[in-house]
Amino acid sequence: MGHLAVAGATGAVGQEICTLLEQRGIKPSHLTLLASARSAGSAVTVHGQRVPVLELTADAFTGVDYAIFSAGGDRSRDFAEAAVRAGAVVVDNSSAFRMSDGVPLVIPEVNPQDVCHHKGIIANPNCSTIIMNMAVWPLHRVNPVRRLIVSTYQAASGAGAAAMNELLTQSADVLAGREFTPKSFPHPCAFNLFSHNTPLGVDGYNTEERKMIDETHKIFHDESIAISATCVRVPVLRAHSESINISFDRPITPEEVRAILAGAAGVTIVDDAEAGRFPMPIDATGQDDVLVGRIRQDVSQPDGRGIEMFVSGDQLRKGAALNAIQIVELLAAS
Amino acid sequence: MGHLAVAGATGAVGQEICTLLEQRGIKPSHLTLLASARSAGSAVTVHGQRVPVLELTADAFTGVDYAIFSAGGDRSRDFAEAAVRAGAVVVDNSSAFRMSDGVPLVIPEVNPQDVCHHKGIIANPNCSTIIMNMAVWPLHRVNPVRRLIVSTYQAASGAGAAAMNELLTQSADVLAGREFTPKSFPHPCAFNLFSHNTPLGVDGYNTEERKMIDETHKIFHDESIAISATCVRVPVLRAHSESINISFDRPITPEEVRAILAGAAGVTIVDDAEAGRFPMPIDATGQDDVLVGRIRQDVSQPDGRGIEMFVSGDQLRKGAALNAIQIVELLAAS
Repeated sequence: MGHLAVAGATGAVGQEICTLLEQRGIKPSHLTLLASARSAGSAVTVHGQRVPVLELTADAFTGVDYAIFSAGGDRSRDFAEAAVRAGAVVVDNSSAFRMSDGVPLVIPEVNPQDVCHHKGIIANPNCSTIIMNMAVWPLHRVNPVRRLIVSTYQAASGAGAAAMNELLTQSADVLAGREFTPKSFPHPCAFNLFSHNTPLGVDGYNTEERKMIDETHKIFHDESIAISATCVRVPVLRAHSESINISFDRPITPEEVRAILAGAAGVTIVDDAEAGRFPMPIDATGQDDVLVGRIRQDVSQPDGRGIEMFVSGDQLRKGAALNAIQIVELLAAS
Repeated sequence: MGHLAVAGATGAVGQEICTLLEQRGIKPSHLTLLASARSAGSAVTVHGQRVPVLELTADAFTGVDYAIFSAGGDRSRDFAEAAVRAGAVVVDNSSAFRMSDGVPLVIPEVNPQDVCHHKGIIANPNCSTIIMNMAVWPLHRVNPVRRLIVSTYQAASGAGAAAMNELLTQSADVLAGREFTPKSFPHPCAFNLFSHNTPLGVDGYNTEERKMIDETHKIFHDESIAISATCVRVPVLRAHSESINISFDRPITPEEVRAILAGAAGVTIVDDAEAGRFPMPIDATGQDDVLVGRIRQDVSQPDGRGIEMFVSGDQLRKGAALNAIQIVELLAAS
């Protein structure tokens, strides 16, 4: 792999990228770590070497082959074009360019071929979108999905390292009976849950839900799938879970679903009724695979076309850092 | 009100019943508090008076008019018949008799008329069933519900006071980096969530999900409603939340839904998009009403027959103690 830059290197996703470079044995010819002026000047150890964190500026991309952006939409809008002009291919983890024409939106297990059509920027989908579609796409290939109804149980990590820390400190405050003021979220997160705090559109869906709908259509190249989503933040640290109700074009059985998913890349079936073992965020944490379980025939669809399932996937890993690195791996191999 | 007995008086629901007697100004002619031999001998203050907790035995119901059982299904099976033989009407909070012929299953806002047909025992529905149907029934009366798909976010309180305490102590253990052994649940509950730990039937639905389906059919007197449920335990103390997707017989708008629910007893609409204010368990805690929000047209049903909503309701209150007391109030008034 050539020269890799990571913008947002000190954030939760940036740190996970550094961890994954080690765990996957990826050794870029050069590694440039970038962050805001506030974080620049520190250093991160990768492959046993201290790598300095430099300030993210438009001039920081000279010689860079691949630039993963995980520094928020504003930073992507401010600096991604500069990285492209400098000759880098940008893999952007923000939502800034996801729905833009000419920007492929890629889950490597779903639509790797779209990587070829980039014009400098490839977008990494929303974390909840990725985690859902790791389980849905292998089924859609065999028996087209007609309708998806999903309710999410999203971890604090989706709002960054500060939010994860806030969940912990706020929980300690509640246990100690101390007053606290929420900062990362507009509502208390400890021992509470709330509707995802993104703005609502005129249709009443919040931005996170709209992402799950629109991004799935783009990734699947199929606008015809009827999708509804309800996105909820829960007091979990870093793995998202989702309850997914699927209607298929033709009848399908839980046994067929299990057989298909057993052969799907990036998916592990955790569905042991006797042991009471199903996907849980603490089991998905730190794992590459999305865990899928509670696979059952939807009894509300007597025609046999319905399946219920429950998934958990690491938001920082497959939901963000891993998927971005896989895209860079695809680019480097092509 | 006549002579009231509470079996399971020292449990989470029993304690809430004592609180509600004070808050609602209910003064039974006599109050008998019953619990297992382990808890008998203590006392509970109600209306400023210390009421002794006696041992729950078959002989404890002499002169009792109404007996609320909240001591688990085994205690109900062991002692409810004795209470009925002694002349009491039993309001049973367990699942022991809910689906039995001749046992009305009652939510006073939904099917109060069923109270009249009891043969000594009236069953209090499952907490998740009650909370869902407080919001669904008023709509069903106007425009019949054809299909319900619900995913729950259930608090620790559903498993009792010990489980609530375990969530707190386990959270402290996680924060302190201490080892812990789950007791109330088969899995860690702090900063985690898991599929409701009731056994799975041959259809893959767990008992909690099956209750939501079967009990709704019985309460609504309508077996034709297609229902699927996914029940999940989350690290919240005492209010359950639910993401509910509804298909109606005829088209319906969010405005119609709001107008209907604004006039519904026991329901408060919390749906302020501008302020980002929607139902949250910490707001539902200690409240009688079920909070309903995120009311929107389901974009996956282009025929306009779909509605999405999100509810939170206090599991110990409307989900258990309040509903039981309301049934006793109905009986006392009839």
